[in-house]
Amino acid sequence: MDLDFIKPLIKPANTKIVLLVIDGLGGLPREKNGKTELETAKTPNLDKLAEESICGLQQPVKTGITPGSGPGHIALFGYNPVKYQVGRGVLAAHGIGFNLKSGDIAARGNFCTVDENGNVLDRRAGRIPTEKNQELCKLLRNIKLPDTEVFIETVKEYRLLLVLRGNGLSGKLNDTDPQEVGKKPLEPKPLASEAEKTANLVKQFINQAKDVLKDQHPANMLLLRGFSEKPDWPTMKESFGLKSAAIAGYPMYRGLAKLLDMNLLETGNTINDEFTTLEKNWDSYDFFFVHIKKSDSAGEDGDFDRKVSVIEEVDKQIPRLLGLNPDVIIVTGDHSTPAVLKYHSWHPVPVLLWSKHCRHDNVKNFGERSCITGGLGPRFPAEDLIPLALANAKRLEKFGA
Amino acid sequence: MDLDFIKPLIKPANTKIVLLVIDGLGGLPREKNGKTELETAKTPNLDKLAEESICGLQQPVKTGITPGSGPGHIALFGYNPVKYQVGRGVLAAHGIGFNLKSGDIAARGNFCTVDENGNVLDRRAGRIPTEKNQELCKLLRNIKLPDTEVFIETVKEYRLLLVLRGNGLSGKLNDTDPQEVGKKPLEPKPLASEAEKTANLVKQFINQAKDVLKDQHPANMLLLRGFSEKPDWPTMKESFGLKSAAIAGYPMYRGLAKLLDMNLLETGNTINDEFTTLEKNWDSYDFFFVHIKKSDSAGEDGDFDRKVSVIEEVDKQIPRLLGLNPDVIIVTGDHSTPAVLKYHSWHPVPVLLWSKHCRHDNVKNFGERSCITGGLGPRFPAEDLIPLALANAKRLEKFGA
Repeated sequence: MDLDFIKPLIKPANTKIVLLVIDGLGGLPREKNGKTELETAKTPNLDKLAEESICGLQQPVKTGITPGSGPGHIALFGYNPVKYQVGRGVLAAHGIGFNLKSGDIAARGNFCTVDENGNVLDRRAGRIPTEKNQELCKLLRNIKLPDTEVFIETVKEYRLLLVLRGNGLSGKLNDTDPQEVGKKPLEPKPLASEAEKTANLVKQFINQAKDVLKDQHPANMLLLRGFSEKPDWPTMKESFGLKSAAIAGYPMYRGLAKLLDMNLLETGNTINDEFTTLEKNWDSYDFFFVHIKKSDSAGEDGDFDRKVSVIEEVDKQIPRLLGLNPDVIIVTGDHSTPAVLKYHSWHPVPVLLWSKHCRHDNVKNFGERSCITGGLGPRFPAEDLIPLALANAKRLEKFGA
Repeated sequence: MDLDFIKPLIKPANTKIVLLVIDGLGGLPREKNGKTELETAKTPNLDKLAEESICGLQQPVKTGITPGSGPGHIALFGYNPVKYQVGRGVLAAHGIGFNLKSGDIAARGNFCTVDENGNVLDRRAGRIPTEKNQELCKLLRNIKLPDTEVFIETVKEYRLLLVLRGNGLSGKLNDTDPQEVGKKPLEPKPLASEAEKTANLVKQFINQAKDVLKDQHPANMLLLRGFSEKPDWPTMKESFGLKSAAIAGYPMYRGLAKLLDMNLLETGNTINDEFTTLEKNWDSYDFFFVHIKKSDSAGEDGDFDRKVSVIEEVDKQIPRLLGLNPDVIIVTGDHSTPAVLKYHSWHPVPVLLWSKHCRHDNVKNFGERSCITGGLGPRFPAEDLIPLALANAKRLEKFGA
């Protein structure tokens, strides 16, 4: 929904909304005519909740489009995921918990191997171990650029992060990664005039890096992509009047919440820990984003049974959630990750929205097929969930006289 | 869906998609509380396919809007039918298989009858026979225009086609058909400055035609409408990366496919012939548009039973289609043509999308009412079918990191 449309309708209320994201929730049957992960899982609490909710299937982006975790969450937070796109460099920074400042430019890097003519032989430098990466990053930290701070951080194996901090920088640059072997790395070129200075700095950085790495093996060069600036988006408070908190263990999801200025709560590693964190902070916020990662990891590993048991583990926490007496609960995922596909997919995601004031449909249990005939329909736009939650939380004025 | 959005996500794959269009598929019951044509037809193969598909009802344009065959197909091909409108002149040209070149201007013409003051007495000249039309077209072919080729072709009865070929022409002209009797034909006027030259040429053409026809009876004049240029649209290859082929007997549907640069395959007249053509060309393309005309003709004739039997004839071919081992099958129509209405209608059209990776819903047979509760929902936008087919054919990258 258009943020400018909804903003004048926002009103304060003493109500609480919980968005429980079971990452990669949607699935597919393992056998023909079989059940999906969610349909297989024993979820008495979620089924009871679904019975008292309005249910459906939601689409984070568009029909047929497989969302990355970025757009998947941005949509669940009520923002149009096509309009509010996060650059890959910025996501990489968030992924390792690097605290980007306004105006910073971030890029993802690969250590790679080039031949004597400078042509790329291996875009991933034989997937060097993380320890080697750390050693090389240490060397690269000697690079100095005029009037600009340079940050080099190890991500994992061959992957690194580059951040430039200075005045008048822009992320509008092309990637230097040629995306295929046998070609030279591309020159960093400005895609808009405001990026000329940055292109020049990146060129200097690459020339020095080439020199630093030239005698290393197999990682004797680097490739950069996804140059991007920390976006300056309206916060959850500005957009929806919500004092928001994020309960998420993984840096990437903490980073996404941080983009909208949610408060990041410290939490332990287990699902149980996350609900304890929720209980402890219950009085301090209007909106809680609770992120469950393990369902997606199980899906990506192709482990149907493990995904089932993560969902069952979440189900056991639902009574604790209800015990807090929330006004609105949304349970859904940021996308589907069917274990049979071992990857994010385009299939819409089961969703329930529970509140005292929602109008129940006829859905009696929480599953992909049961939700098709729910009151939200089989293709509900994910970005409309927050407006609907606000309505149910009595946080929206009437539109028009 | 926005073509600019989807284009960067397209990736190649060795998969095949079949779009089977049963023209005018959707219908209405003949008796109160009775069954529609599709519900009446014995379609064991389509029902089995529906059971293994995701189903729904699709709308080619918008709710309540009755699509012409042009927009109906353009939407099924994945293009927004409001943005990508085909001019009537261009459609008329395609309808008779006239091979328009880039920059050509086409218009539909009617022979008409005018009185001694030049006022229209009969907009269709008493529906003169096609033979008379051919005779008159022969006379009109003597008309010469400066630096411009003129093509005059008989369509049928009182209808003809005018095509102008030259430099700097534009279709932005008003119709000369006053749309009512008792009025004079309108002057061709430019609707934009770039059409001034064309307006002038058309005026010269009409003046000469008036002279050629003045002693004819009853067709002593002509009216022109739907001036339009051959559109310069992105091809199926450019938009979706699909090497596409059309199997359609009728010139109009071949013309529509040609607009998107699909390869037009030679085929016989029967439904059986069309599936033979599909089999023969299976290895050479990624995407096949197979068009069945007779269902629509039966609907337009108000022949409920004949429409039922055309649908049953198509059903018998489904095993041949499955025998080719396609990755994705879409079965639907370009619009509804209920035999009881004898015309195209606004009712949404049953659709099934079959693939190994689709998430089944609870639809057990292929019909208007059974598809309401399908996973695609009861108002699925037709133009989203191709993106969904691409997803199922593993031809789309993930959106965002």
